[in-house]
Amino acid sequence: MSDFLRTRPWTTPAMHAVFADAAVIGHALAFEAALARAEAAEGVISTVVAAQIVEACRTMSADPAALAEEAALAGTLAIPLVARLRDALSGDAVTAAHRGATSQDVADTVLMMQARTASALVLTDLDRVSIALAELAECHAARPAIGRTLLQDALPVSFGLRIAHWMTGVDEAAQRVRHEAARCQVQLGGAAGTRAGLADRGAAIAARVAADLGLVAAEPWQARRGHVAALASAIAIAIGMLGKMARDISLLAQNAVGEAREPAIAGRGGSSAMAHKRNPTGCQVALSAAIRAPGLVSTILSGLPQEEERGLGGWQAEGPALADLFLLAAGSADAMAIVAEGLEIDTVAIQRNLAAAKIGTDIGESAAIVAALLARHEG
Amino acid sequence: MSDFLRTRPWTTPAMHAVFADAAVIGHALAFEAALARAEAAEGVISTVVAAQIVEACRTMSADPAALAEEAALAGTLAIPLVARLRDALSGDAVTAAHRGATSQDVADTVLMMQARTASALVLTDLDRVSIALAELAECHAARPAIGRTLLQDALPVSFGLRIAHWMTGVDEAAQRVRHEAARCQVQLGGAAGTRAGLADRGAAIAARVAADLGLVAAEPWQARRGHVAALASAIAIAIGMLGKMARDISLLAQNAVGEAREPAIAGRGGSSAMAHKRNPTGCQVALSAAIRAPGLVSTILSGLPQEEERGLGGWQAEGPALADLFLLAAGSADAMAIVAEGLEIDTVAIQRNLAAAKIGTDIGESAAIVAALLARHEG
Amino acid sequence: MSDFLRTRPWTTPAMHAVFADAAVIGHALAFEAALARAEAAEGVISTVVAAQIVEACRTMSADPAALAEEAALAGTLAIPLVARLRDALSGDAVTAAHRGATSQDVADTVLMMQARTASALVLTDLDRVSIALAELAECHAARPAIGRTLLQDALPVSFGLRIAHWMTGVDEAAQRVRHEAARCQVQLGGAAGTRAGLADRGAAIAARVAADLGLVAAEPWQARRGHVAALASAIAIAIGMLGKMARDISLLAQNAVGEAREPAIAGRGGSSAMAHKRNPTGCQVALSAAIRAPGLVSTILSGLPQEEERGLGGWQAEGPALADLFLLAAGSADAMAIVAEGLEIDTVAIQRNLAAAKIGTDIGESAAIVAALLARHEG
Amino acid sequence: MSDFLRTRPWTTPAMHAVFADAAVIGHALAFEAALARAEAAEGVISTVVAAQIVEACRTMSADPAALAEEAALAGTLAIPLVARLRDALSGDAVTAAHRGATSQDVADTVLMMQARTASALVLTDLDRVSIALAELAECHAARPAIGRTLLQDALPVSFGLRIAHWMTGVDEAAQRVRHEAARCQVQLGGAAGTRAGLADRGAAIAARVAADLGLVAAEPWQARRGHVAALASAIAIAIGMLGKMARDISLLAQNAVGEAREPAIAGRGGSSAMAHKRNPTGCQVALSAAIRAPGLVSTILSGLPQEEERGLGGWQAEGPALADLFLLAAGSADAMAIVAEGLEIDTVAIQRNLAAAKIGTDIGESAAIVAALLARHEG
Repeated sequence: MSDFLRTRPWTTPAMHAVFADAAVIGHALAFEAALARAEAAEGVISTVVAAQIVEACRTMSADPAALAEEAALAGTLAIPLVARLRDALSGDAVTAAHRGATSQDVADTVLMMQARTASALVLTDLDRVSIALAELAECHAARPAIGRTLLQDALPVSFGLRIAHWMTGVDEAAQRVRHEAARCQVQLGGAAGTRAGLADRGAAIAARVAADLGLVAAEPWQARRGHVAALASAIAIAIGMLGKMARDISLLAQNAVGEAREPAIAGRGGSSAMAHKRNPTGCQVALSAAIRAPGLVSTILSGLPQEEERGLGGWQAEGPALADLFLLAAGSADAMAIVAEGLEIDTVAIQRNLAAAKIGTDIGESAAIVAALLARHEG
Repeated sequence: MSDFLRTRPWTTPAMHAVFADAAVIGHALAFEAALARAEAAEGVISTVVAAQIVEACRTMSADPAALAEEAALAGTLAIPLVARLRDALSGDAVTAAHRGATSQDVADTVLMMQARTASALVLTDLDRVSIALAELAECHAARPAIGRTLLQDALPVSFGLRIAHWMTGVDEAAQRVRHEAARCQVQLGGAAGTRAGLADRGAAIAARVAADLGLVAAEPWQARRGHVAALASAIAIAIGMLGKMARDISLLAQNAVGEAREPAIAGRGGSSAMAHKRNPTGCQVALSAAIRAPGLVSTILSGLPQEEERGLGGWQAEGPALADLFLLAAGSADAMAIVAEGLEIDTVAIQRNLAAAKIGTDIGESAAIVAALLARHEG
Repeated sequence: MSDFLRTRPWTTPAMHAVFADAAVIGHALAFEAALARAEAAEGVISTVVAAQIVEACRTMSADPAALAEEAALAGTLAIPLVARLRDALSGDAVTAAHRGATSQDVADTVLMMQARTASALVLTDLDRVSIALAELAECHAARPAIGRTLLQDALPVSFGLRIAHWMTGVDEAAQRVRHEAARCQVQLGGAAGTRAGLADRGAAIAARVAADLGLVAAEPWQARRGHVAALASAIAIAIGMLGKMARDISLLAQNAVGEAREPAIAGRGGSSAMAHKRNPTGCQVALSAAIRAPGLVSTILSGLPQEEERGLGGWQAEGPALADLFLLAAGSADAMAIVAEGLEIDTVAIQRNLAAAKIGTDIGESAAIVAALLARHEG
Repeated sequence: MSDFLRTRPWTTPAMHAVFADAAVIGHALAFEAALARAEAAEGVISTVVAAQIVEACRTMSADPAALAEEAALAGTLAIPLVARLRDALSGDAVTAAHRGATSQDVADTVLMMQARTASALVLTDLDRVSIALAELAECHAARPAIGRTLLQDALPVSFGLRIAHWMTGVDEAAQRVRHEAARCQVQLGGAAGTRAGLADRGAAIAARVAADLGLVAAEPWQARRGHVAALASAIAIAIGMLGKMARDISLLAQNAVGEAREPAIAGRGGSSAMAHKRNPTGCQVALSAAIRAPGLVSTILSGLPQEEERGLGGWQAEGPALADLFLLAAGSADAMAIVAEGLEIDTVAIQRNLAAAKIGTDIGESAAIVAALLARHEG
């Protein structure tokens, strides 16, 4: 039962893969393997047993559909997955697997591994956008154009100033994503977050698991999830800044304005009824994402007041919302990277619109502001 | 690239099927076939040509993944789908297919067909919930229990009164869903919503298409989408009322309270770390849905100010959000139906907690209120 | 400590008055008076005592600032207000006042009285908008103009068709507001919603209070609040439809388009830096409202899963959000009524833009669709 | 027309003052005075003229109600305020006042001055919360208590561990607020953001104005507002973490649990119907805020895609939403500071509930985790 038509229009295949079943299962087994290795290194389980667990994690496969059915029934993925893992083991390894861990340890660590990978993908595309815009901003830094406020002609600006603002908006947003993504933490607390059952080696084991999986070591954080909300907000702000750029380009691309438009690409932005149209398809993706992201952030914020040692509802609401934010960000950043890299700028139209406004050509300190913004971009 | 683990925990396979690729393609081809039939009936295309189109719609198949790639590039599903349909045709049928229609006609009509089917599914499960609750409310209509306000013991209520409120909340919500679902309208306006190209038979053709597909006939409504937002709100209110019921049951199921708990079902509500636990897994699904639904409604409301004859961003944001609302509603309603049908009520605990409050047993007019609410339920 | 600058730009003085302190206190005392009258009529308190309470409610005054301080401390307005009322009474009237009622009865009934008045105000302005638009739609029903989809020139439409869609959007939204506003219910349940303390005359007393205050009689609904959410959604949809109209007019008013603009009014839409500008100030109010309303609806929806007999947090979040929705709706509807009533339409620009699109003048069935929408408007 | 009853229950008088009319007018005039001083220092206007403007800003007064009426009509506060300022001046000072500035410069700089003050207020109360919690966490670091996951008894934790998580949640949130508040920037761009009319001394003048007003110097940022959204998110996360603490305390305070409750304070948390009740009034404020904040953040995020050089709708939606977030944060932080400072912990109940769970007393590494969290708190 495929879902391509419901999700593909607004995300990328690469980001979709980050949140697809194969990644979830792979990360979950990577967690169990890392846990076994760490517990062996700290003397909590034997190295022989750990090796058996690691090997089982490496070789076992699970049918996502069947696993999902059981997970839905159990209320958590870890129960059926660990059961399968134990089925693949024998002797001491059966009880040693997943030792000291709980379902939430698996789920949260998987989510953080996805968040780290997803953030990197988004940052790469935000960089593509920003680099392309920097070039355009520099090129048009002193080109007079009519500035518009409240959708009305106002005073002249430089065309590059508008672009430089898009660039800085994206740069600042990327900086926030980078900052929050660097805090993707391992979760290892056990059933109630006390690390009982880890023979007083919990902190050391958590640190080893974190290092193994490329995450940050941390105390358990089961029902204390401000950093997830902060990452979600950072992603949504990036989507918003891409949306601002898309809003402007879609306005500039209006037939009556014509100052810029999306690149012409075969098969892109057509109409099933009007062969002559070139629709701003990239802007459409970005604006749609900018309308959807805020509600997803509000979901994650709404879920923060989680009950005691593990929330009922708030916690479970978070994962799908965070995934959707990344899916949207990827679609938007990729679409706007294509737009930025191929943006067609019509300098004749720019000049014509400015002349029509009969307001002169004084662009004030536009060029200096562009230079200052570019300096920050490079810095 | 499957997504079972990301979506299955919070929805049902039946609702997932409503929004899966096969349904989208099937509905889109049903629209094209209905359009051809209607245009033939109104003399706009020949009946022979219409029959060829209908037959092609019936027999053609399309790979969802490939279609989704092209749709993502084109910005709309109809472009690659109609291209495939035309490839399957010859002669006059090639241009007659999709005549007078535009991409949005296909997309919106498909969405309305999904909304109608999805609403029916949700209503069926809301009825299951309500019927089970009515029985419980009647049974416990006069049983004194401690009432709690602001999470503190207050005065006695009847246990059935609390249940009757859940029932009425669900009933009233279902009534709103039913009301809005009955307005699922056909979309047929053509490129700019004027029904140009339909030889002045547009209204009649639209009426025929609507009747064929089981939708309501209507003037084109491309950028006027209040009814979609109203349906979304109705669904979210239903999710909220199920959430209220889940909140209460999860509070009643606390070990220190123990007045009610979810039915025991093999494989359900366990813990990967604590074999003795019985988690309120149904409530978890419902509460999680109640946290996620509001943001999705806000997305659809945010998208309402759509530009001129077809919105850029707002329109495209709506479909996925509406689908998610239905997916959540299905998961929540099904989970709470199971809970309602098997709810374990511990009358000894109810009595013990009431006695501990030392506040007497005067339940006022509880029984009469329950009777009034039950009368409305049956009415 | 006044708040004019924080609230006035986006609402009307009339709506502000509906939610101001004087109205709250007035409605709360009206509730207490109506309750006393009803209890006397049902023989629960003496008519002499009731008359004393009614008279005290009529004559007493309370300093809003001091009352608010005490209410903030107590967690509810009714505690300090009823204390003041009792201070103004003597003998049996002291205990007879507020008999059988609880703080939530006061708060919810006040909210419903405000909602009813506020809805009527909004409906009046929505009617103003709709009536003005109907006239314009009829006038321009057959005037060819370029239709735009995805912000690109598409095919011709009639200028009146676009306006007719605004009108129908507003009409349909008003219909929903009217429907939900007609359900504004009295709240009378007592401490735990059982109507204990009303001598088994609770239902009759509630019916009398409702009739006295112009509300609908109902069973208590303390933690079952779907109808509040439904009213909030209806208001937000109206705001969204006004936002759609504002979006279009602001686009049409762009200097490069120039097909329509807001009426020129002294002191309106100026610029502190550019004397030549005429800003779309009405559209600004409406678009701003359309951006703020969705989050308020999501707040009310988020609050639905309220705990047992009275929610902790969810209930208290609802009142301010509902008030803000009405404040926004009033500001938006009033602003767009002014815009609709004085909208300047430039037929020369319309013709010029259409000619520039080189796409002919076939407006299809535009006029017939306008006629159908107008018929519904009048029906 | 006062609004105490609509706003006081959920905010503090101190924060209300930050967003009241007097502060807005005071900050706006401080901006105009600082601008005059800076322009004189950079030789753009004469020092004599600047002194006249500064003096007029110091001495002039304006009726907020009248100003608000005119601002609502004009669409911006600066127009009527600057008109009044100019009325108070003569000679060259008339045109020199507000030179090179635009309405948005005033509005945004005022907003940033408010945001800075408001952030400081919130941080002070977050510190009160955190300091009180640190003491409690240390005191109960090794006290066994039953841990609860999904609202079900799970395994033992230390009571201090739960408190330490509240503390760290608040600390981390405060850190984000501090980080974003430190970026409160001056806005000085002029009509279209180019600093035209400042004789090429714009950057220097902006730096002087910033230093004068205690803000950060920056390039103009009219339609690039990611940092406002980031501040809003940080505030909302703090509200969410206070909400998590409130959720837990309200659960612990349930009669059947009884492990902790809010301090007894005269006049606080009573019931108009039940004299025996002690309601969790502080938690009520915090939970209500946690339900309202997410929608406000979504509003600000929704407004990010602002049009060209000044947004229509998105910009105007931001100020009231940001103000509400601060108002909510102040109410919540103050309420929970009172709760934290006086929290009553019942160690007998804690022991009793743990014993009832029959699950032993192994709290694992709870004490070590508390110590680690406390070390971060002090660090």
